[in-house]
Amino acid sequence: MLSRNQIKLITSLQQKKFRKLHGLFLAEGERLVGELLMSNLHLHALFALPGWIEKNSQLPEAYRKMVQQVSASELERISTLKTSNQVLALFEIPHYRFEPQLMGQEPLLMLDDIQDPGNLGTIMRTADWFGIRNILCSKNTAEAFSPKTIQSSMGSIARVKIFYLDLMEVLQQTQSDAPVYGALLDGNTINKTHFLPNAILLIGNEGHGISNSLQKYITHPVYIPPFLDASPGIIRPESLNASMATAILCWEYRRQNW
Amino acid sequence: MLSRNQIKLITSLQQKKFRKLHGLFLAEGERLVGELLMSNLHLHALFALPGWIEKNSQLPEAYRKMVQQVSASELERISTLKTSNQVLALFEIPHYRFEPQLMGQEPLLMLDDIQDPGNLGTIMRTADWFGIRNILCSKNTAEAFSPKTIQSSMGSIARVKIFYLDLMEVLQQTQSDAPVYGALLDGNTINKTHFLPNAILLIGNEGHGISNSLQKYITHPVYIPPFLDASPGIIRPESLNASMATAILCWEYRRQNW
Repeated sequence: MLSRNQIKLITSLQQKKFRKLHGLFLAEGERLVGELLMSNLHLHALFALPGWIEKNSQLPEAYRKMVQQVSASELERISTLKTSNQVLALFEIPHYRFEPQLMGQEPLLMLDDIQDPGNLGTIMRTADWFGIRNILCSKNTAEAFSPKTIQSSMGSIARVKIFYLDLMEVLQQTQSDAPVYGALLDGNTINKTHFLPNAILLIGNEGHGISNSLQKYITHPVYIPPFLDASPGIIRPESLNASMATAILCWEYRRQNW
Repeated sequence: MLSRNQIKLITSLQQKKFRKLHGLFLAEGERLVGELLMSNLHLHALFALPGWIEKNSQLPEAYRKMVQQVSASELERISTLKTSNQVLALFEIPHYRFEPQLMGQEPLLMLDDIQDPGNLGTIMRTADWFGIRNILCSKNTAEAFSPKTIQSSMGSIARVKIFYLDLMEVLQQTQSDAPVYGALLDGNTINKTHFLPNAILLIGNEGHGISNSLQKYITHPVYIPPFLDASPGIIRPESLNASMATAILCWEYRRQNW
């Protein structure tokens, strides 16, 4: 049986200020929670239906004692999903320190004000897939630990490190020679771009692209070209979705740097 | 001033059965509606704030008489968006007949039960970007004219043709020699795949992939490989988001067939 205070804590974590205050985030569903339990993240509490508990009787002792059984209607009550799903867990929000010397030593993704939590989640998942494990976000980027981002990251939150930084400062202060590939409308088409190893891939906001103050740090402006056929009356599409563009850039970078 | 019947009609279009009944769909926002007005789609009605009407005084006569001025609070009332945006329009749902001889003559995208309306919208936008203008959907694929899909397609609904068909029948009945590239876990990695021109790109459901009954029609099973580094303790990510995978396949197809 959930206590009032537990319900209050859990539901408060749907808001950024309480995630910050408590240093905790929410994850839901068998698959996602299962992945996070196998990661380095620290479990804080776990609420599950009897069926889940039975299936997961092999959990390490340290975890087992943090498991609390709940009923389907209790789970419904604390869930952020349309249909709650077996298990809801609270994990500690991890804190990492960004090491500027990583620039030029590993590929990095930089996100300049990506606003949509779902976009951020799928971007994390894609970066993870292509082995890009450090994501530098501008301070106005959507928050990585919101329920929507966590659910769409599908466990990648445990494998990629997210940093919220002043990107201009980062690019300015470091004496890095890392090549910076920024997605710009007047960039070179990516099918004619050679991607250097350990590049920084810089992606702009969904509506406004990369902010002016960051554009001067781009060493290689790049552009994903549309394929325009000659059919009369066809208006050209205006843009690609930001997370789709990120996926294509990550793939193209990785394809050339396997 | 909106009549009760107008409000009833407009809000009913949030539901599939009423879109089907009336043959109409909803589009909102200056940019999206602006794009659709320039397309071949047929406008049915348009509701806009005074500011939008003033800015769009150059509309063709036929459209101008379909414009109805509304107040911000009226627009709020009929909007499907969190923040309503200047203009809401109703367009007729277009109907196209699929010509099987297109298979092998043009690239085609086939979607086997894509469930998420947002995924479907961004997939339409990406296909459009890469000049793939025919999308064949299984009958259980999300509906292309739902408000969420329309908003995330960003006007691509006017440029790509969507067909809901029994995909097995299509693949079976046609004597097409078109190569069928299907995204499968045991496919060949796409960095070692040669994409033939006018291919069919087949994408499966977000959770279950391509259904068994369609798999036998795949002539080229393909796979987007994850980049796995040797770091100890790193669990490999389980999958890519379906729309991200589609973006990468469309790009890779197009890169090789410009």
